[in-house]
Amino acid sequence: MPSRFELANAIRALSMDAVQKAKSGHPGAPMGMADIAEVLWNDFLKHNPSDPNWADRDRFVLSNGHGSMLLYSLLHLTGYEVSLEHLQSFRQLHSPTAGHPEYGYAPGIETTTGPLGQGLANAVGMALAEKTLAAQFNRPGHTIIDHTTWCFVGDGCLMEGISHEVASLAGTQELGKLVVFYDDNGISIDGEVEGWFTDDTAKRFDAYGWHVVSNVDGHNPNEIKAAIELAKSHDDKPSLIICKTVIGFGAPNKQGKEDAHGAPLGEDEVAAARKELDWPHAPFHIPEPIYSGWDARTKGKARQDEWKSRFERYSAAFPEQARELKRRLKRQLPAEITSEALIEKAQEKGESIASRKASFAALNALGPQMPELLGGSADLAPSNLTFWDGAKAITPQDASGNYLHYGVREFGMGAIMNGIALHGGFVPYGATFLIFMEYMRNSLRMAALMGQQVIYVFTHDSIGLGEDGPTHQPVEQLTSLRTTPNLCTWRPCDAVETAASWDAAIKRHSGPTALVLSRQNLPHQARTKEQLANIQRGAYVLKDSSGTPALILIATGSEVSLAMEAAAELEAQGKAVRVVSMPSAYRFNGQSADYRESVLPPSVTKRIAIEAGHADYWYKYVGLEGRVIGMTTYGESAPAGDLFKHFGFTVENIVTQANELLG
Amino acid sequence: MPSRFELANAIRALSMDAVQKAKSGHPGAPMGMADIAEVLWNDFLKHNPSDPNWADRDRFVLSNGHGSMLLYSLLHLTGYEVSLEHLQSFRQLHSPTAGHPEYGYAPGIETTTGPLGQGLANAVGMALAEKTLAAQFNRPGHTIIDHTTWCFVGDGCLMEGISHEVASLAGTQELGKLVVFYDDNGISIDGEVEGWFTDDTAKRFDAYGWHVVSNVDGHNPNEIKAAIELAKSHDDKPSLIICKTVIGFGAPNKQGKEDAHGAPLGEDEVAAARKELDWPHAPFHIPEPIYSGWDARTKGKARQDEWKSRFERYSAAFPEQARELKRRLKRQLPAEITSEALIEKAQEKGESIASRKASFAALNALGPQMPELLGGSADLAPSNLTFWDGAKAITPQDASGNYLHYGVREFGMGAIMNGIALHGGFVPYGATFLIFMEYMRNSLRMAALMGQQVIYVFTHDSIGLGEDGPTHQPVEQLTSLRTTPNLCTWRPCDAVETAASWDAAIKRHSGPTALVLSRQNLPHQARTKEQLANIQRGAYVLKDSSGTPALILIATGSEVSLAMEAAAELEAQGKAVRVVSMPSAYRFNGQSADYRESVLPPSVTKRIAIEAGHADYWYKYVGLEGRVIGMTTYGESAPAGDLFKHFGFTVENIVTQANELLG
Repeated sequence: MPSRFELANAIRALSMDAVQKAKSGHPGAPMGMADIAEVLWNDFLKHNPSDPNWADRDRFVLSNGHGSMLLYSLLHLTGYEVSLEHLQSFRQLHSPTAGHPEYGYAPGIETTTGPLGQGLANAVGMALAEKTLAAQFNRPGHTIIDHTTWCFVGDGCLMEGISHEVASLAGTQELGKLVVFYDDNGISIDGEVEGWFTDDTAKRFDAYGWHVVSNVDGHNPNEIKAAIELAKSHDDKPSLIICKTVIGFGAPNKQGKEDAHGAPLGEDEVAAARKELDWPHAPFHIPEPIYSGWDARTKGKARQDEWKSRFERYSAAFPEQARELKRRLKRQLPAEITSEALIEKAQEKGESIASRKASFAALNALGPQMPELLGGSADLAPSNLTFWDGAKAITPQDASGNYLHYGVREFGMGAIMNGIALHGGFVPYGATFLIFMEYMRNSLRMAALMGQQVIYVFTHDSIGLGEDGPTHQPVEQLTSLRTTPNLCTWRPCDAVETAASWDAAIKRHSGPTALVLSRQNLPHQARTKEQLANIQRGAYVLKDSSGTPALILIATGSEVSLAMEAAAELEAQGKAVRVVSMPSAYRFNGQSADYRESVLPPSVTKRIAIEAGHADYWYKYVGLEGRVIGMTTYGESAPAGDLFKHFGFTVENIVTQANELLG
Repeated sequence: MPSRFELANAIRALSMDAVQKAKSGHPGAPMGMADIAEVLWNDFLKHNPSDPNWADRDRFVLSNGHGSMLLYSLLHLTGYEVSLEHLQSFRQLHSPTAGHPEYGYAPGIETTTGPLGQGLANAVGMALAEKTLAAQFNRPGHTIIDHTTWCFVGDGCLMEGISHEVASLAGTQELGKLVVFYDDNGISIDGEVEGWFTDDTAKRFDAYGWHVVSNVDGHNPNEIKAAIELAKSHDDKPSLIICKTVIGFGAPNKQGKEDAHGAPLGEDEVAAARKELDWPHAPFHIPEPIYSGWDARTKGKARQDEWKSRFERYSAAFPEQARELKRRLKRQLPAEITSEALIEKAQEKGESIASRKASFAALNALGPQMPELLGGSADLAPSNLTFWDGAKAITPQDASGNYLHYGVREFGMGAIMNGIALHGGFVPYGATFLIFMEYMRNSLRMAALMGQQVIYVFTHDSIGLGEDGPTHQPVEQLTSLRTTPNLCTWRPCDAVETAASWDAAIKRHSGPTALVLSRQNLPHQARTKEQLANIQRGAYVLKDSSGTPALILIATGSEVSLAMEAAAELEAQGKAVRVVSMPSAYRFNGQSADYRESVLPPSVTKRIAIEAGHADYWYKYVGLEGRVIGMTTYGESAPAGDLFKHFGFTVENIVTQANELLG
């Protein structure tokens, strides 16, 4: 029977060898946290390597994702489908063992980590999802959702601002089943952190209402085990276990120094570490007793089997709830969802309202049908209009609600939503002003990279928000959203397109959707049945000329009605003008070439794009011969009407420019 | 002699009246913080309304910038050039009194605030700049730099993650002359904050090493005064004064509620508040005794005069230092700066090195000549190569250095740099990987909006960084930078263009500059003298065809050498190909139409842009008939060479696509 130290050394050896073979990577964190991981995974973690998707498994998040070899080693050793060959192809093209853990690349990777701090936020989201799902589905005598979220963080994660946002919220929400291990090794890339990181972290987390276990020797399995047991005994507060560790533990000349952090140790130091650790085995060779000591498949299967029988009893007692839970975990929409009908209804109703209000109406229609919607706003609910009539706040005492008051924490909200989506059982939506998308920007990218269904409600979408001025007026943000791979962005022009964008958002399971909405009222547009259907194609002819158009006006959102008015005036002047509404360039780009060319015929090169966002994006559609009426500067503080005039978003200006272009 | 309460009520009346007249705005914070502001401005703030640019003035930052009427009222009342008419045109086009305080719009606005938390970070930057400038220039018996930075923050600022980053760093750096007032009114937009903000803020700041004065009655001038005196007596730690206040104090039916936060009180409530506050005066009427009680001009002039004579004594004793300080405060470059010569030298030297290394060389050349350079990196110095040979870390004990270890705090770094730039005396530069620009993104926007000289060193600029994988590989980030108004972005193709980009960055005083640099080596390009000079035009013909080109290849950074090789191959096939290197689209767009058309003749419509960043940006230059070899997906984890092949950044692919296009 191998000792705990020997088991942990398997992680160390695999990590330093894989990094050495790849000629790049981070040996320091895996070698430093190996003992903590060994105790956690062998004595506590509830999981079944043969079924990485078991709904009630514990979640394990490596927020310091550069230590990816720690995770890959654990997955390999405990019996996941991560082979020795995979470890040997660490950081190579098409290998599941990427430089940082990439969700979907290998089984057992619960989230993509690397951008520091966000893993911790994902973990908070997972713990929150667990608590809410449990509150919604567990019944007396039937505890079917009951798992712990474990998270490793480094100094970097704790220096990042997002750690504040999410630790604060986790404390407020009393997420008792969240346990975080802080790898307190005193080293970051610039050197010893005492020059730039002197927080009393225990006191800080105490201030957030966490339960803190301080001064744990991260290389002493008994201390680690006792700390975890203490953490598990506190179920009314999240726990932080502060482990003193040595970065690169076992590498005799580099341990405890920044040299061990982010580069291969070098052949000599790897050899010296083998000696130091008394690990005589060849690179990538793990003796059978070590494998046996790690193998979690039998135990994991037994635990899952036990859960399955519990779930069967639950299904018998509460068949409807069990079906509903299964549906939600499978990420299926309710069969009877009426989101498409909403579009038609909106067209019939013909309201001229702000698209944020149309979004509120859509939420009020969809909310009752979709209990998996888990909403929120970063303290702008009355402006974002996200707290719909059936919204119920999640509180520490009653987690069964469907709405989280995120507070003024945009980045935290974004990354928590990613954790909620990854956990399963929910479709999170979260809101802020479009400009403050910037605060949460990298979390959108992570949702898109991981292909998670997260819905962003971004209101106050342009200078049209008026008096709050340049700091609050988006300019370049739409371009930022549209150039983010796998992020589907909508900027609807009226209540009808808004309903269509919500319909698209709830149906898009392969990635996030951003709804970009106006503060101000938007005129209703008339549409034929065909036009109505074409909204989902992302762009369509909203008004056509008889015969080939001489000019195409392309617009989105609040500028579509301007384009329509301008077209009417140009038509009165005898010009053949087509108006294309393009609520979603993402959707349009995914259409067949035939459809795209039917909307924007290559032969018509006289084109004007009109959008109160940055101009540059639109050259993609208007080319070198076209024009863009857009923003190239910041906005100003003034009533919206004044600003539209000031920046040239007027029928008059469109007509003038059109006539110049038509020559 | 009016009472303190009456003086404070002048702020309340002006604020509620201006918001009412504008029909939009935030009366709550100004009315709630009026008493604190009154004590601070009348008894402590060192300033001269007649010279808002006095170098040794105290700095006042309203981080909760939505309370802008508080600041405008103070500026008006104390004698700045902010008139009653200005207050009456609050939030109107071309008025200096914008919805949020906009730097440069009115005298006395030290920074643009609105995006929450960043004002606090600016204040930290200002306090740090003060401490460092003092350490560099004060001499025994000659204290010429000695001022306090005061900052107001609300619940929102303290919930934001950036508050953690900068408060932590301020504690580490022991910024004893920073005093922050927390408007602890228990209300945010969603309602009472106890549902989403339960931090023990005193304990939290204690954990950062701050001096905390808790439980101050924010409506009791004596308590406020005592708290400030206590704060001033602690000069080894930054101070947080936690003031219990009532939002919208004085509005009898709305005070203490979220209703008072962000909308006009309404005529009736304004009238009721007049009664409640015993303020019988007409809207915008301030009785003369109140004006007299506030007027700070005489006292301010006396203080500045006293400083002037101190400065004269300093100039006599230390003429060289005095001249140097004046130069730096005027934001003038040293006369003898040799940055242009660096470009020529780099061309002669002809090194094929990574542009981050070329940047390091530029820093080593410029650093000794520019003591105003105040560098740093968000814990990536060894990768960003920003800690040049003469760099000296700023520490709590010795602030005279020129380099700040920011720790893993990108957003904090960005907003602190803004504060340093606004303070004056420094040209800050700060570094991280390009992808983590996203974490600090809104601070770049604020620097650009405020027109501040801040230099960003963004290394690891594409899939070329290799194995760290998709989380670390920028795709859409270059587009985000390029579409940010007033941000000048450079992506140099070799050591020569890198030197040129540094030359441009240090000379650009009207806004920030982003240097986007490679991790990997870049081949040196040959250039004529004319080509060398044209680098500063942002784009230039690096290789021309004889006669009119049939095809133009446009490239930047690491892709320029690929374009050059492809052009050579195409030329061997008999094709007339021009290669345009475009290190800075921003600079190129600012050239005359003649120059632009000489580089990209409108008649040549067959164009291919090649950049390992998002493709969409480039349609602006290649139009509907051109092609872009760029990224439209995320990257992968693999050695850089493999990735360039995988994503089509090869000479072969360029040649193939060129031949397709040429038909």
